[in-house]
Amino acid sequence: MNTPKKITTCFVSNWYDKDINSESIVVVIDVLRATSVISTAFHYGVKEIIPVQSLEDARNYQSEENHIVAAERNAMPIEGFDFGNSPFHYMNDKVKDKTLVLTTTNGTKALEIAKNQICITASFVNFDSVVKYLFLQEKDVVLLCSGWKGLFNLEDSIFAGKLAESLMQKGFQNSNDSTLAAIYLFKNADTDLFSFLNDSSHRERLRSLHMEEDTKFCLSPTFQSDIIPILKDGKLIKA
Amino acid sequence: MNTPKKITTCFVSNWYDKDINSESIVVVIDVLRATSVISTAFHYGVKEIIPVQSLEDARNYQSEENHIVAAERNAMPIEGFDFGNSPFHYMNDKVKDKTLVLTTTNGTKALEIAKNQICITASFVNFDSVVKYLFLQEKDVVLLCSGWKGLFNLEDSIFAGKLAESLMQKGFQNSNDSTLAAIYLFKNADTDLFSFLNDSSHRERLRSLHMEEDTKFCLSPTFQSDIIPILKDGKLIKA
Repeated sequence: MNTPKKITTCFVSNWYDKDINSESIVVVIDVLRATSVISTAFHYGVKEIIPVQSLEDARNYQSEENHIVAAERNAMPIEGFDFGNSPFHYMNDKVKDKTLVLTTTNGTKALEIAKNQICITASFVNFDSVVKYLFLQEKDVVLLCSGWKGLFNLEDSIFAGKLAESLMQKGFQNSNDSTLAAIYLFKNADTDLFSFLNDSSHRERLRSLHMEEDTKFCLSPTFQSDIIPILKDGKLIKA
Repeated sequence: MNTPKKITTCFVSNWYDKDINSESIVVVIDVLRATSVISTAFHYGVKEIIPVQSLEDARNYQSEENHIVAAERNAMPIEGFDFGNSPFHYMNDKVKDKTLVLTTTNGTKALEIAKNQICITASFVNFDSVVKYLFLQEKDVVLLCSGWKGLFNLEDSIFAGKLAESLMQKGFQNSNDSTLAAIYLFKNADTDLFSFLNDSSHRERLRSLHMEEDTKFCLSPTFQSDIIPILKDGKLIKA
């Protein structure tokens, strides 16, 4: 990079002040589980993903050919929809070449907030590729954590810290205290993220719903996807 | 305590959702420097402190007898005012028995946000007394970090982590991921907070203004005050 590019971290999507970073690439992060689902679905052959805000909007797609419609609220799948927010739902041939319509509690809101900027999604499933992609773009970067219903969460912040550290090793510069804090949190968690998140609110939520396998996969996926989902005209496609 | 009381941490004052915690004691934190100034001023004999939002409001008090008026914006003192936002301004006899009128960039905003709840101010200057006070009140606690102009800052978050850890040792329970993160950050910083904050935005700001002595004092004060400033009818008085 000729001039070092800046990293700004935002801990919760609705705290994001777009005016400050309108030229940046926004990296939407919702590791438990929306952006992990998005990476997994693309890896298993989904053609494109349409993030929508409401269950109503999602239902409107249910009659469309070659569409699969997925919905989650408060970590639970919603009755009447084909799929929920578990990455394991997408690890099969049924999703190949389909359009996935997805609405979730937090992740799809963050995508809505970032929709007028260059916007990609990141998770541990496509981590390595995201680092390479951002390095090649030579633009300032906003790490936009989805949070949980407007509140800070640990897992997205730690992921932002891991991403920020990798980018700084490639010459990016930190531009705010949130990024510093995220890196410190990641360094605390690095050796065993699953244990580190033991007391976190969302791991607790997923545990109580017997979704521990989802958490394990999202934090330590069994494969790496080289696909960068990028938002174009309201749809996530392969960059 | 009969039933464990909850700790909720809010990293920036304007992200605070009062409806969730309307019965809690709100602890306003702005360690660099407003709440350190407040503790210092009380320790040196100030009778009461009136936090105001605007320079205009502050100016209205300049003609009042026995009032001293202090103003700060963007870390700088404001011309035409008796005092600024350095704790060293208050370490003398001039402040004794006076009413201090104070407006600052972030701290006085946080007080405004919390004004309809039980609200006290905390800093490293009155840390030990704050822990004892909160323990005796037996109420849920909100640790309300002022932040910097609507953004997360490290110093307030670390202070919140230190306070949360002390309260948890006395039987309080954590209730959100922000508190967990604050405690992790504090544990990283514990041995040398001044160095830990070396890259933080506000330490950098104060350094560039040659206010390093303020930072040193606020992070590692030379005395402990046993006064708990509490907000009553728009004024901070001794609890």
